[in-house]
Parts: sequence; structure tokens; C-alpha cells
Amino acid sequence: MTSEATPTLLDFRSDTITRPDEQMRVAMARAEVGDNVIDVDPTVRELERRAAETLGMDAALWTPSGTMANLIALSVHLGRGDRFLATRNAHVLTNELGSAAWLAGGMPDVLEHDAGPGRPTPRAVRVAAGTRGGPYYALRTTLLCLENTHNAAGGAITPPDEHALLVSTARDEGLLVHLDGARLWNAAAALGLPPAALTVGVDTVSACFSKGLGAPVGSVVAGSEEFVERARRMRQMLGGGVRQGGVLAAACLVALDRVGDLTRDHANARALADGLRDLGWDVSEPQTNIVLAAVPDVRLTLESLRSLGILTLPMAGKVRFVLHRDVSADDVAEALDRIKASGK
Amino acid sequence: MTSEATPTLLDFRSDTITRPDEQMRVAMARAEVGDNVIDVDPTVRELERRAAETLGMDAALWTPSGTMANLIALSVHLGRGDRFLATRNAHVLTNELGSAAWLAGGMPDVLEHDAGPGRPTPRAVRVAAGTRGGPYYALRTTLLCLENTHNAAGGAITPPDEHALLVSTARDEGLLVHLDGARLWNAAAALGLPPAALTVGVDTVSACFSKGLGAPVGSVVAGSEEFVERARRMRQMLGGGVRQGGVLAAACLVALDRVGDLTRDHANARALADGLRDLGWDVSEPQTNIVLAAVPDVRLTLESLRSLGILTLPMAGKVRFVLHRDVSADDVAEALDRIKASGK
Amino acid sequence: MTSEATPTLLDFRSDTITRPDEQMRVAMARAEVGDNVIDVDPTVRELERRAAETLGMDAALWTPSGTMANLIALSVHLGRGDRFLATRNAHVLTNELGSAAWLAGGMPDVLEHDAGPGRPTPRAVRVAAGTRGGPYYALRTTLLCLENTHNAAGGAITPPDEHALLVSTARDEGLLVHLDGARLWNAAAALGLPPAALTVGVDTVSACFSKGLGAPVGSVVAGSEEFVERARRMRQMLGGGVRQGGVLAAACLVALDRVGDLTRDHANARALADGLRDLGWDVSEPQTNIVLAAVPDVRLTLESLRSLGILTLPMAGKVRFVLHRDVSADDVAEALDRIKASGK
Amino acid sequence: MTSEATPTLLDFRSDTITRPDEQMRVAMARAEVGDNVIDVDPTVRELERRAAETLGMDAALWTPSGTMANLIALSVHLGRGDRFLATRNAHVLTNELGSAAWLAGGMPDVLEHDAGPGRPTPRAVRVAAGTRGGPYYALRTTLLCLENTHNAAGGAITPPDEHALLVSTARDEGLLVHLDGARLWNAAAALGLPPAALTVGVDTVSACFSKGLGAPVGSVVAGSEEFVERARRMRQMLGGGVRQGGVLAAACLVALDRVGDLTRDHANARALADGLRDLGWDVSEPQTNIVLAAVPDVRLTLESLRSLGILTLPMAGKVRFVLHRDVSADDVAEALDRIKASGK
Repeated sequence: MTSEATPTLLDFRSDTITRPDEQMRVAMARAEVGDNVIDVDPTVRELERRAAETLGMDAALWTPSGTMANLIALSVHLGRGDRFLATRNAHVLTNELGSAAWLAGGMPDVLEHDAGPGRPTPRAVRVAAGTRGGPYYALRTTLLCLENTHNAAGGAITPPDEHALLVSTARDEGLLVHLDGARLWNAAAALGLPPAALTVGVDTVSACFSKGLGAPVGSVVAGSEEFVERARRMRQMLGGGVRQGGVLAAACLVALDRVGDLTRDHANARALADGLRDLGWDVSEPQTNIVLAAVPDVRLTLESLRSLGILTLPMAGKVRFVLHRDVSADDVAEALDRIKASGK
Repeated sequence: MTSEATPTLLDFRSDTITRPDEQMRVAMARAEVGDNVIDVDPTVRELERRAAETLGMDAALWTPSGTMANLIALSVHLGRGDRFLATRNAHVLTNELGSAAWLAGGMPDVLEHDAGPGRPTPRAVRVAAGTRGGPYYALRTTLLCLENTHNAAGGAITPPDEHALLVSTARDEGLLVHLDGARLWNAAAALGLPPAALTVGVDTVSACFSKGLGAPVGSVVAGSEEFVERARRMRQMLGGGVRQGGVLAAACLVALDRVGDLTRDHANARALADGLRDLGWDVSEPQTNIVLAAVPDVRLTLESLRSLGILTLPMAGKVRFVLHRDVSADDVAEALDRIKASGK
Repeated sequence: MTSEATPTLLDFRSDTITRPDEQMRVAMARAEVGDNVIDVDPTVRELERRAAETLGMDAALWTPSGTMANLIALSVHLGRGDRFLATRNAHVLTNELGSAAWLAGGMPDVLEHDAGPGRPTPRAVRVAAGTRGGPYYALRTTLLCLENTHNAAGGAITPPDEHALLVSTARDEGLLVHLDGARLWNAAAALGLPPAALTVGVDTVSACFSKGLGAPVGSVVAGSEEFVERARRMRQMLGGGVRQGGVLAAACLVALDRVGDLTRDHANARALADGLRDLGWDVSEPQTNIVLAAVPDVRLTLESLRSLGILTLPMAGKVRFVLHRDVSADDVAEALDRIKASGK
Repeated sequence: MTSEATPTLLDFRSDTITRPDEQMRVAMARAEVGDNVIDVDPTVRELERRAAETLGMDAALWTPSGTMANLIALSVHLGRGDRFLATRNAHVLTNELGSAAWLAGGMPDVLEHDAGPGRPTPRAVRVAAGTRGGPYYALRTTLLCLENTHNAAGGAITPPDEHALLVSTARDEGLLVHLDGARLWNAAAALGLPPAALTVGVDTVSACFSKGLGAPVGSVVAGSEEFVERARRMRQMLGGGVRQGGVLAAACLVALDRVGDLTRDHANARALADGLRDLGWDVSEPQTNIVLAAVPDVRLTLESLRSLGILTLPMAGKVRFVLHRDVSADDVAEALDRIKASGK
């Protein structure tokens, strides 16, 4: 499906394509396991304990995907028809098949990125939230959904101070706060901060082990003990309760030790962006591991790149390159060479 | 609940407050009726036939409210998680308690009013729709929702040529089109056109008899015969199947003959806007029966007006005055006098 | 649709077909009204006050249909996936298009009529409820749904003592109790008791004015003040919030004074049952206004009766005759004559 | 959580507790993988191909759990409020947290086990289905759900001839057929038939690798190519789309070769049943790997057994012992000894 005649494929489609390495495979093969639905899987439990700690939350729950992690959080937080606020092109709005609406029951209101890529202004949050105390027939805004780093905004970071301001504004307006932290690790690595520095004040946060950290399968959603109790039931409802999940959690535990490695991907992203800019491309300066290129015709560019053995995906009307463990600095150089040679 | 000590109440809260007059009451009292669930109510049937004709559609279905009319249309059109496009602050987004999301199953994408109040640009529709032919894991955009006149945009009209362009763009992108025409009658009256001139090309349209036209209860949703068949079942599911509905439809039939009367409300709206502007208020020029006033503090202004015996409601961050059958030109003059006298 | 060549139609299809009489029409024409969504309609309020009182509840909410009344109660009571108990062929299970499941979110468990027509045993309630205190991955049973009179059981009555026993059993098991009292008036009239005697201990009850009592449109759902507050919002969500509902409530108020009249229908039902039995039909003894006849081929019998100008509907695998205001004792005699003459 | 002071725990709670053995762990560690959401994971694909073939279907889709496999099938098959038929205490009714109702949108009708444990009669299917061609306001029955082996009926088998008769009856009534075959392997092993012999005529079948076959995580749902295409989207919606799923599929592939091994569990089940019967217990004759014991007080017996180091779970009002790979013939003998010694 993905093969062309050209030499080797350079795959920038997503950091989700990263394959487990030998250390992870060994960990999986040796994992101590149990039935995680009717009982406890010790490795899953250990992962959940460590993830909660790393994220600065009381408790965490393993899920098969980041989509399910977000869906569980929204399902627990939202009542039928509650309005939630999310940034334009947020993952929960555009990349989860609408489940925040039809399944979690929320009506979104879209916040523009007025404070910078991926970031709404506190004022916009305040204005959008402002239906509190309205009559019984009015929509109720109950939740603010943040995303850090913000995928569609090119891996953009919301720094701790802006995060804190958004959270406190939401609090003032009586809103719950969920943070889609699928790539929170990247923000933490880029800022040189512990991940917990970026979750201050939120009710829940999701984070993914199967993107830049390289685990094959798994995310967590974290919050209070009481939240996790409700989340566990919702996970079971959705069919996300797996049995000997420890084989997967073992790889996630390895992943959790690799947050620091992500700076390599960030350096590669900058190198790619610089190289593309030198070739005349219109690219934004990457803050983490994602490079977005504005091109006249996205479909055409995707195909041209594919013919060079360079795989990418479209994102928010641009071409997205994602850097990750399975793309080296040499691969970046090779990609730039191929593009240069092709005269594109 | 709404009473203060002041003289008479001048009620600009909504055209929904209009009370049935003698002609309507007589029509209701004399209506021929039947069981409209298991059989046919002849007066409901006559209304549905005439409404379909007036709206330029093949068939129509009576509903107890405009909210249900829209909800039925969206429920029939949308699959689980389908994305639909609607303008910022559209009634289906902000005034129907999120049912378009949790109940009809749609994930909205918000179009700005870039072509003018209440109107998105065709280009915006094209860009937002553009996920067609995407992979299985991508959101599908399947519906464009228009609103004419547009409530939150101050009763703004989408003229026939712009309407046509938006519909043809939606068609090119493979989208269905639903028109929330709760106040379509106002647009038709203001333009001096038959309502059917404003529904060209849509799949479905809702329209309300209980706003400016003065009927106590009732809306319709119109479309193809096949749509109405599915809509009838959905209405029953929602509990909107009523028995001897003819008593209500009789009033709606009277209302249907009064579309022309709405120009009186439009003249009153202009007079109110002019008067308020003369008093230094920041008001937009009304296109139909709604006047929006931008004020520094909406809650405060609502209360001040209420203390003068002038009732209004907030809308999209402004103060909304709605003109209707039960507010006369004299009432408008009186309202302006009171405001002037109060020095507000 | 309903016409055949035969003399006059005798319509036993449902008591929902009853048409408003002159007194109701006058009441409707004179009703004092208001906007019942954004404000208060005084006639609706008066109906709700009187209905609550009659039903022995704190508060009540008018709805456009009995289906919506039940749907609102179940939607307020049930969380996602909660199990509720209902009798086999209960209206909420078989006559409301599955909305108790897909919309209110409940998973039903079916109780057989082991204590008599329309009535489960307390023991069956206890056994079915018995998952309380189960693990997080177990279904939770949270609601018992009763129906009095029970439509599919032929208008069968649950007497006060059995009702009380079922309610106290449900309470012991931690269940809420909703009573579908669409025809509770018939049970009260037949027993010579006030309706409130049949609602003792329930959380909520629905009751219909548009069946035997003859109002054109309308039901109520009653419960605590807090329940009604939540129900009002749910009604708006479903599109059941109507504006000048007073025109309908006025007829419902007239209906409320006619509970005693229902005994006439009950006498007619007994006369019909006796007559049919004399003709060799297999009919149960009617407790209220419904006669169920067991026949070899329901469809065939429905058609034969129709050819005689006698309209009926199928119910729970039998032929159902419903007696009501618009069928007189003479009509019953006439129907029996026609059947006798036809040799059926 | 599960520990008491007693010697070793003998765990009869479920065959889901089986742990992956060395062969599976090696297979997992060596699995070739890919991103199974945006691309293809070769090992998942191989499993899906082989599972479809084994089950006699055109195509199959891997899912993280049997609950999700059933939920996907029901979600694809059922429209809002459609009625589906399932046997009393079927897994989709009582063990999946009501998702068949609130999420897939189905209203169940319960069929009794009139043809034998786990099996309804064709006549019951015909009667329950019989609303076809009803009016628009009638519930539509669109799906029959079978379960083979039937968990709550004690692992009871529906033999091929009865299966065929039920399927053809459903077909005659215009129903789709889904088979919950979580333990279909056990039925096949017990009958000495290929699994495909037990899926004849169904639209879809789910099957589980994480029960008796011993894989850590994973099920499949199989059907036509077109079904699987829709199912893949639904899986993504629910958050069941995982990335490098091949690590799990590799273990499922090993499991698929072990269907024959299940006869050992069946022999152990018979031995346990015989032994318990010798001790005076009221146990049914096991057809596969499940032994149900009728006891006066389920909770009390569960606790007594637990105090002997024997773990079981309640099922359908009885005590359920499940035999599986991690319980040997010696363990069965040991369990019987402990019970005998305790005088229970």
C-alpha cells in the first residue's frame, strides 16, 4: 500500500508509526500479567501509578488509544448537550470521528488561536463560557479542552504561565478543564520541565505512549481517584477493558523513561524546517517534532513527495512532517537531498 | 415573574410571545380534527400541504416546535459523528441545548460570518467541507446548515443570489443542505419575494408559525416525500406525535396568510433603531424585525430596561429587541420616550 | 385511508381518537396564554398545579405526548447503560420506538406478568434488581417501570396494595420507580379511588389527557420539584417546549374533571366483551376500557372487522377493542349486531 | 486483593484469566508490526485473514475485546431504536454495561431458553419478529443475536442443525443475524467440527482469543468485506484503533492453533461436575468448559469457596466454575478435596 519504486521510504506521516525496539520487546515478553478487567494486572497497575505521578495527578487509567482516553474524559465530564470549548482543529474536534459530540454528548464551541498557535486567549475563554447562570433553556458551558502540544498548530507548545492563566480563567467561569496531552511529553522535553509542570490545575489529562515515545499500543487518562473509578467503567462500556494488558503496559513503562530522548526529534524537526526553508518552502518554525508546510496544493505536494519516497499526511490545510524515533538526522538530510534533486 | 411597578410592560423579548388573536381562536375552536398519529388529522394535513407549497418543497411535517423541526432534519441527515457546518451562533448551535450533537449525532464546524451578518462565504464552505474522499478514520462533512433570517446576526437576510451560491458550493462538495427558516417569512416579506424563492436547492427547510406570524404552537420541516416519511418516524421517537393536532394547525393556517403583515414589524424595527441611535445607542441597521444593541454591560442594560418596563433578552453578547404583532408603533415610541426620560 | 363503503365507522382503535367536544373547544378559544418557554403560560401552570395535586405529587410538567412524558422521566432517571425493569410488552418497551434505550440510555430487563395481567411479582423485581453492589464492570439496575392500567395486558389494573408492595420492594433494592400512568385515570375510576391512591411511593408518574379523557393534545409527567426542573430542560432538548401551550392546557383542564365519566367506557367494555363471548369469541374480562380478543389470525380478523366498518388495532398478538367517549352503548350494540350478522 | 492465607489459589473465575505462555511471548516479541490505523500492520492483517477463513466469513477485524466486537456489530446493524432479539441473560444484554442499548441504539426483546439451555425456539423468534410491515410508529425488529456457547446457560452449545433453523427463521422474518461466538471455539472443539460449521448463514460473528485460547488481548468480529469496512470506522470511533497491534495479534495467531486443546478443559469440567455432584451439589452436566452450581445463597458459597482458596464468580443466579488452560486436572482434584474436607 505504501510502497513505490524509490530507494528507501522516509516516513514522516506520524510519530504513531514508531515500532517497539528490542528493549521494549524484551519487556513485553517478560511482563508479569493478570486479568485487568475482573482483577488487577500488576504491570498495568505499575504503569498507571507511575504515569499518574509523572503527570502530577492522583490516579491514571490505561487505555488502548489516545482517542479513547479523550473520549472517556469527555464522557465523564459532559452531560447531554453540555457545551465544551476547544481550539479550532483540536484533535477532539477533527480527529476523533465526532465522538465528543455523538458519544460523549458535547456541543463544541470553537476558540480561535488568538494567543498564538494552539492557544486561545483567556478573554476568549471567558466570553465563550459566559452563559453561566442562564435560564433553563440555555446551553451550559461546562468544560474547557486544551491541547498541548497542539497537533494541528504544528506541535505548538502552551507554556506553563499561559496554561495557568487559561486554567484559572476556566475555573473562574466554573468550567472543568481537560488537557489532551497526547504529546505533552514533547512540550515537557522542549521546555526542559517535568510533565507535571504542564498539568497544573487541570481536572484530567490524557497522554500517549504510542507516539514519539515509541510504545506499540497505549495511552492513559489521569485525574482524581474518583474520576478514574468512573473512567474505568466507561472504558469497559466502550470495549476498552483488556485482559492481560501488562504485555502492553510493559512497553509503556519503557517509553515513560524516554521523554528526554524527544529532544533529538525536535532537533531533527528544526533541521528539516531550515532545510525546507532554504529550498524556498513556506514552513513555520517548529517548537517540537512537527513541521507544517504551507503549499499551494496539498494533494499535489503529498503525491510529489510520495514519488520521492517521502511519506507525509495533510493537516489543517497544510503538509505535515512528523519527526520521530524511526527517522534519523541522516534521514532528514536524505529527504532534503531528494527534494532538492527533484527541483520541487 | 415579569412584573415591575411601572405602567405597562413593553415586551421586546421575542416574537414567540405573540398571542393568538380572535381569528385564530375561532379557527382553532372550529377545526376539523383526527388522530394524527395512527390516522390523519385533516387540518394538519391541509397545513402540511399548504406549507410545503409555500416553501417550494414536495412535502412537509408539522412539529410542536422549531427546535424539534431542526432536530428532526439533522437526525435524518446526519450519521454518527458526521460533521456539519453552521454559522457562528447559529440557532442549532447555541439555542437548542446541544441536541444537534448528542441527539442528532453531529459534530459541528463553525463558519464565521465573513460574507456579512449571518452569511459565510462559499469559499469558507468549500474549505471546511474539504475532507471528502479522506481515509476511513477521517471525519466526514456531510451537511451545511444555513439560517435565514439569522437570529444571532440580528435578523439578517441571506439574499437569493448568495443563498444560491452557498447551496451550489455545498452541492459541489457533496453536502446536503438544511435551512433553518424559523423566520424565513421575515426574509421573504422584507424582500417582497415568495418564501420559495429562498429555499431553492435545499434538501430541507424548517419554518415556524409561532414567532412573528402569531400562531400559539407549531412549526414545519419540509423536504422530499421520502424525507418526510423518515421525519414522521423521528417525530414519533421524540414524542412529538400529537393526536388532534388540527386545533393547532388551524391557527397555523391563519398564520400562513399573514406573511405580508411582517413588514409592519420591520418598519417598527427601523423606527426603534433610528430612535435608539438618536439617543446615542450603538445599534445595527435592522434588516427585518430584530434590533441588536451593543452595550458595555449587557446584564446591566437588561436590568435598566426592565426597570423602565421594557423587556428584552441578551443575544450573542448584545441586547436584542424583537418587534412583533403585539408591539405597535406607539409602543416603540413609548419605549423610546421612557429610555430618553431615564437618561440612559 | 379509513373509509370503506359500509354505513358508519365504529372506531375502537384507540381512546386517543377522541375528539374535543364543545366545552373543550370553548375553553381553548378563551384560554389565557403566555410564552411557556421563556416565561410562564398561566393556563399551563394551572394545569400543572392541578395535575400534580390530583396525582399526589409535588409538581408536574405538561408535555405534548405520553411518549415524551415517559421519555423525559426515563432520561432523567437513567444513566448511560443503566438497567431498568419493565413488564413484558410495556408501552415503554414496545410502543415508543425504542427511545427508552437509544435516547434515555437504558437497557431493559423484561419482567413477566407473573402476579396477574400487567403485574410482576415483588419476588421477580427482587431477583432482577439483584446486581446491587456488584463490581464496576456489572450492569446497574436503577429503575422499576410500572404501568397502570397496563395497555398490552388489556387495560389491567394494579390495585393499590400490590402497587405498594412492588414499590416497597423496589425501594428495598435501591431502585427508583416510574409509573406509566397514561391510563391511570381508568384505574382510579374503576376502583372508585382518587388517582393519588395509585401513585403512592413512586418517584415519577406520567398521565395522559388525550386518551379516554378526550383532550386533543397533552400529557403530564409529575414528580418532585427538582425532578420537574430537570424535566423542563429535557423537554426543551427534545423540542417539546411549546409557546402558548395554554390553548391545549385549557382542554386538559376540562379533561381533568371527567375522570368519573370513564366508568361509562368500562361498562361499554364489559358489554362488548359479554356480547363477543356470546358470539363464541375468546375474550378476557375487561377491567377497564380495553377488550382483548384472542383470534387464530390477527391480521385476518382486523380485515374482516374493517369490512364491517369496525376499526380495531392489534396488540400483543391479539385484537384490541378500546372503548372511549366517542363510542356509545348503542355503537357497541351495533358492532355486535354487525359481527353477528356477518357470521364471524 | 484476591489473596487469602490458604495454600495455592485455584482460580475458576473465568477463562479470561489465562496467561500467555512462552510460545506466545516469543511470538509477541518477534512480531512484525506496522501502524494499524493509518496503514497496515502485517501481523494483524494475517490474523484477520486467518480468523475470517476459520470462521467461514469473508473478512474480519481485530478488536481489543469481545465487548467491543459485539458492540461494533450491533452498532453497524442497528438503527436508532431498532429492536433486536437476544436470549435471556445473553452477554450482550447483561455483561456489556448496556452498550447495546445506549450506544448501538437497540431496544432488546428477550427470548426465553425454550429449546434448551442457551437456545430459543424458531417459533419464539418468529413471534417476536412479527412486527414487520407495521405502521411507521411501530418498533422495527431487525436483528437476531445468538450466543454459542452460551455463557449464562453454562457454556451450552447450539448444535449446527438448530443453529441453521434459527438462522433460516430469522431470514424468513427479514432479520439480520449476529452470533456472539466469544466461546465458539469451545462449541467447535466439543462437537469436533470446524468453527465455520457453526456460523452458517450469519451476517456477523464475534470470537475471542483471550478466553480459553489463552491470548492476552484480542477478539475479532467477522462478516462481509463491506461490513468490515464499516466496522473499522466504528472501531476507530470507539477508540479501539491501536497502532502496532501486531504484538497482540501474534499471540492471537498462536491461540488460533489451539482450538483442539479446549477438549482438555471440557474433560476437566466434566470431572469437576461429577465430583461436585458426588459431594451432593446441584450441578448441571457441562457441555463445554463451564460448570454452574445452583446453591441456596450464592454470595455465601462464593465466600466459602474463597476461604478454601477456590475462586469463582456468580452467573445468572448460580455459582460459575470456568475451566481453562491454567487449571489442570490435578487442580480440579485438589479443589474437590478441599471442598470435601471442608464439609461444604
